[in-house]
Amino acid sequence: MDGVVTDLFVTAPAQARHAGLVAAAADAGVAVQVISGEAMSELAQTVTPQGLLAVCGFIDVPLADITRARPRLVVLLANVRDPGNAGTVLRAADAAGADAVIFGDASVDPYNGKCVRASAGSLFHLPVAALSSGAALSSGAAQSSGATQPEQGIRLPGAIAELRAAGLRVIAADGRSGLTLDDPAARELLAEPTAWLFGNEAWGLPDELLALADASVAVPIYGRAESLNLATAAAVCLYASASARHPRVAGA
Amino acid sequence: MDGVVTDLFVTAPAQARHAGLVAAAADAGVAVQVISGEAMSELAQTVTPQGLLAVCGFIDVPLADITRARPRLVVLLANVRDPGNAGTVLRAADAAGADAVIFGDASVDPYNGKCVRASAGSLFHLPVAALSSGAALSSGAAQSSGATQPEQGIRLPGAIAELRAAGLRVIAADGRSGLTLDDPAARELLAEPTAWLFGNEAWGLPDELLALADASVAVPIYGRAESLNLATAAAVCLYASASARHPRVAGA
Repeated sequence: MDGVVTDLFVTAPAQARHAGLVAAAADAGVAVQVISGEAMSELAQTVTPQGLLAVCGFIDVPLADITRARPRLVVLLANVRDPGNAGTVLRAADAAGADAVIFGDASVDPYNGKCVRASAGSLFHLPVAALSSGAALSSGAAQSSGATQPEQGIRLPGAIAELRAAGLRVIAADGRSGLTLDDPAARELLAEPTAWLFGNEAWGLPDELLALADASVAVPIYGRAESLNLATAAAVCLYASASARHPRVAGA
Repeated sequence: MDGVVTDLFVTAPAQARHAGLVAAAADAGVAVQVISGEAMSELAQTVTPQGLLAVCGFIDVPLADITRARPRLVVLLANVRDPGNAGTVLRAADAAGADAVIFGDASVDPYNGKCVRASAGSLFHLPVAALSSGAALSSGAAQSSGATQPEQGIRLPGAIAELRAAGLRVIAADGRSGLTLDDPAARELLAEPTAWLFGNEAWGLPDELLALADASVAVPIYGRAESLNLATAAAVCLYASASARHPRVAGA
């Protein structure tokens, strides 16, 4: 988060608890202000704020920055609306060693407070592109970032084409696919550079996007559940990728 | 859910949308009542109710019922406080083919509305034991079920002993473990009957419980995230079990 934080608001108890952190922020040139618990409750927009609130600059990057870095594991969110889900996917993507997360059109704003909190810091670990924001447009008109109008256009097809041109195979997570994650063929597929495409919590991926993917893979269901929660499905898919990329054989 | 539902409240629009379901419930002897949208909002305790609300009997079972059925994959929740997390773990356990979920002491009530909703029906697919409720006590004093005082006692050590006596190996999910899920030794372990022990969202498992487990296993972290969200970690662990139990080899 170096250079990203501009202001830090802190309650007196939190300042006592996290004295080292607050001092380090002040040393780094961050404007630190001690505020009341009431003011913190207002600012933090959460029921039990932790007493520390940082104001940060936007950090999303253009898609071209992501593809230029030769990523091997990328997450593409299509129409993911729940900020908690999106943040949890970000955290799982980070844990599984993904190189970037792209918030596709009609997905939640990555700067939504619930998304930021659910990401548990991972928003600051991975390059994030938000296709609805100015920064994501490779054509590059300097719009302000962090747009809150995710409905403004369908740019996922373009992003899919760019990722494919960068050598990634686009794999849609789709419960209806005949190819399941536990199939050796899926494992082979996932050993290669992959962009996972995840769809909406309730209705998954529309046919138009499924048609643009190179393959689709389902998380196998062994019990009576109809499906998995989006974030848990994404975590299982991303760890299948991690496992295929980092094989460990007995005795190794 | 056969025989579990006693009453069904439905709004007029939902009755029109789900006419078949409502008729089937009435045929099965369920008392159906059409109510206003306002009454539904009050009853459903959620911002956007779906227009259908069923009143159900308690369904948790004594732990002895679970061990008697010779389970091969069981989930034990220790001190899991967030109802959304607990319900999501239930759903993932169902999807991964688990045989039962046990809500250990100090865990959330499985009948919490958010837990029920997050389970997406899986609460009714798998046997569930709630260690703080009367039904879970194998000693069997007939207390009323669905207790809302999870703090009342520490019964997890007893449950761990009972599961072990039933032939399950108790494996703690612990980020600090030197044995990671991708290790062939972990895979071998998980091919055997397993009770996964998952701890609190923030602080994991206390040393006393870790000491009671037969082994502990960590989800490997390939990136910069410090940990995973509890429900995503549980899903990755449970699918590692499923994969170890249902191996598919190339060409099979």
